[in-house]
Amino acid sequence: MMYLDNAATSFPKPESVKQAVMKAMDVYGANPGRSGHFLSLQTAEKVFEVRTQLKEMFCAKSEQNIIFTQNCTQSLNMVIGGLLKENDHVIITCLEHNSVIRPVHRLSLTKGVAYDIAQIVPNDEDKTVENIERLIKPNTKLIVTTHASNVCGIVLPIEKIARMAKRYGLYYMVDAAQTAGMLPIHLEETPIDFVAMPGHKGLYGPSGTGVLIAQCPEVLEPIYTGGTGSASMQLEQPDFSPDKFESGTINTAGIIGLGAGLAFLQNRGMENVYRHELKLITQIYDGLVEMEEVKLYTARPQYGKAAPVLCFTADGFTSEEIVTQMSDKGICLRGGLHCSPLAHSFLGTIQSGAVRVSTGVFNTDIQVKTFLDELKKIVKTQVK
Amino acid sequence: MMYLDNAATSFPKPESVKQAVMKAMDVYGANPGRSGHFLSLQTAEKVFEVRTQLKEMFCAKSEQNIIFTQNCTQSLNMVIGGLLKENDHVIITCLEHNSVIRPVHRLSLTKGVAYDIAQIVPNDEDKTVENIERLIKPNTKLIVTTHASNVCGIVLPIEKIARMAKRYGLYYMVDAAQTAGMLPIHLEETPIDFVAMPGHKGLYGPSGTGVLIAQCPEVLEPIYTGGTGSASMQLEQPDFSPDKFESGTINTAGIIGLGAGLAFLQNRGMENVYRHELKLITQIYDGLVEMEEVKLYTARPQYGKAAPVLCFTADGFTSEEIVTQMSDKGICLRGGLHCSPLAHSFLGTIQSGAVRVSTGVFNTDIQVKTFLDELKKIVKTQVK
Repeated sequence: MMYLDNAATSFPKPESVKQAVMKAMDVYGANPGRSGHFLSLQTAEKVFEVRTQLKEMFCAKSEQNIIFTQNCTQSLNMVIGGLLKENDHVIITCLEHNSVIRPVHRLSLTKGVAYDIAQIVPNDEDKTVENIERLIKPNTKLIVTTHASNVCGIVLPIEKIARMAKRYGLYYMVDAAQTAGMLPIHLEETPIDFVAMPGHKGLYGPSGTGVLIAQCPEVLEPIYTGGTGSASMQLEQPDFSPDKFESGTINTAGIIGLGAGLAFLQNRGMENVYRHELKLITQIYDGLVEMEEVKLYTARPQYGKAAPVLCFTADGFTSEEIVTQMSDKGICLRGGLHCSPLAHSFLGTIQSGAVRVSTGVFNTDIQVKTFLDELKKIVKTQVK
Repeated sequence: MMYLDNAATSFPKPESVKQAVMKAMDVYGANPGRSGHFLSLQTAEKVFEVRTQLKEMFCAKSEQNIIFTQNCTQSLNMVIGGLLKENDHVIITCLEHNSVIRPVHRLSLTKGVAYDIAQIVPNDEDKTVENIERLIKPNTKLIVTTHASNVCGIVLPIEKIARMAKRYGLYYMVDAAQTAGMLPIHLEETPIDFVAMPGHKGLYGPSGTGVLIAQCPEVLEPIYTGGTGSASMQLEQPDFSPDKFESGTINTAGIIGLGAGLAFLQNRGMENVYRHELKLITQIYDGLVEMEEVKLYTARPQYGKAAPVLCFTADGFTSEEIVTQMSDKGICLRGGLHCSPLAHSFLGTIQSGAVRVSTGVFNTDIQVKTFLDELKKIVKTQVK
């Protein structure tokens, strides 16, 4: 079995993550922040430790800025839905995932929020920033950009976008779905207001975990409310973070598992992990370039400029045909549109879709070789 | 260690649930409904099996009516926030949790949704239904009631409320936070439109799981949107359930664990589990009645009329003092307001709070005896 679908969720999970989830279910099984007994307090402490880990990893202001969610999509919705009001304007880019486009588009239909889509220019950071800047209007409130495309791995210059946004007094959110745990995001140095991320991809946590780092949570309205174990007498939602945004029982076992994922990453060294994944995706790129039936859509991956994700098409095959045939050989890839129609329009693959390959920490050089050999057999043997 | 805080979350979890989570992380670790490879398809199949289990347990119309959420609070918000529009009216009861009150109260502030709070009458079902009926206005759209109070265990007559609601053409949602997995809810026989429930309480699933059963999902707007792995080309959220409501990566390991919790419950027999828990809470009730320092707030628990939850106060102690002293003896209880200020107002404990005891499947007669002995020592030895 060879898993090359890490952009959807990382697999397998480190042994330490599985053990942490198990231990959490065995030992930290009470509801944190709810009861005054030792089991609840211990669980709350463990959850707080993970907030601290995340705070330190991203240089966030405080643990109060770390909000646990179910997934990255929910984190993105919390800002898009929690910040934008009638007649506000928001700028997104042509590489955004449906987790950004759909909530923004929905607000345009329901609340009269306007949006524009900035064209990115591969390998020209300044031009990309200019294209975003050009769309700013008097009523622009928020810029949302992905850190790296989930389809083709192109990295956007978030530091430059952040500084530009601040010059205009705009809020800036980064969708770090493909980069959290791979590329550094330093919130003390870079004025990003919100970072949305999954726990279950590059941070190696279990499914059911997501994080929103909100440097200014006070400007957000919660998109759902309820019991928080705090200020219980009041009918209004508490106005302090993270309680304001964490109604109901949180995924304690998942969060504690995420803590183990963060520790795993720290032990290996985030940069080492990224270099390993990038090396493999580059080997794949180089192998694909040599197959004349295969078409690639990006430049060769470069350090810091690409997430370990690429997509390709093969003459005479739909992307799903490639995925199915490779699956029959035990190799896991993803075809279709990857929930990112804008990105596929940008790449020119909106009709065909594309095959996506995404490497992870547990992939190996040998797997890359096997992947290329097996793919070659498929694309070469096609009877036209 | 003695855990009597099962109304917050059930603990410990059955061994089979832990094993299922572990296996899910080992084997069903891909992202379901996203990719075409075998690992993703297998994971999607396992998730679908849990939908089938829930459909059958609650006699829901179809698997499409089973929506996975992070917790019961999110399920409740999906209906309250997804159904009510400006100038709508909603009726709740005086036993509702903050997970109902807060979203409703918030809509009253932000959207001009009006609400009324019906008084329940313990041990008089018809009077309770009448009190709700009396509050119906021309613009009433929804009735939300808990199935059983999370503070004192009183069960509301959901079948009678449902039939009354249908006579008026109103939507009816049951908050089954304390009863899912204990008391039967039969959606073929009872015209309930929505049932919200946690996965991690009486269904014995892991944290991070919740369920909304929506018999008419088409009337709900989603409270958040994003990638669903379906209809990816369109910027609009898919209009079919469950995709419409399940944006982003779901908690696959948690859901598969929930499936094992449902199987555990089925093997033991839901009624057997409930009878066991009710027997223990009744023993506790009977023991508390004999302590003159202790005040109880409900009648003796009766089959079908009470969830295995009760609350009490003790002369000269705050609820938190009792909780802390019992915690020092290894006994887990919950004090304070239990996120339910309305219920505490109703019981007359809004100022003092109360100590809550809630039994679970793994509690024993011996534990009950120890609990009563230890509590007696505390309340008797107080120097006044």
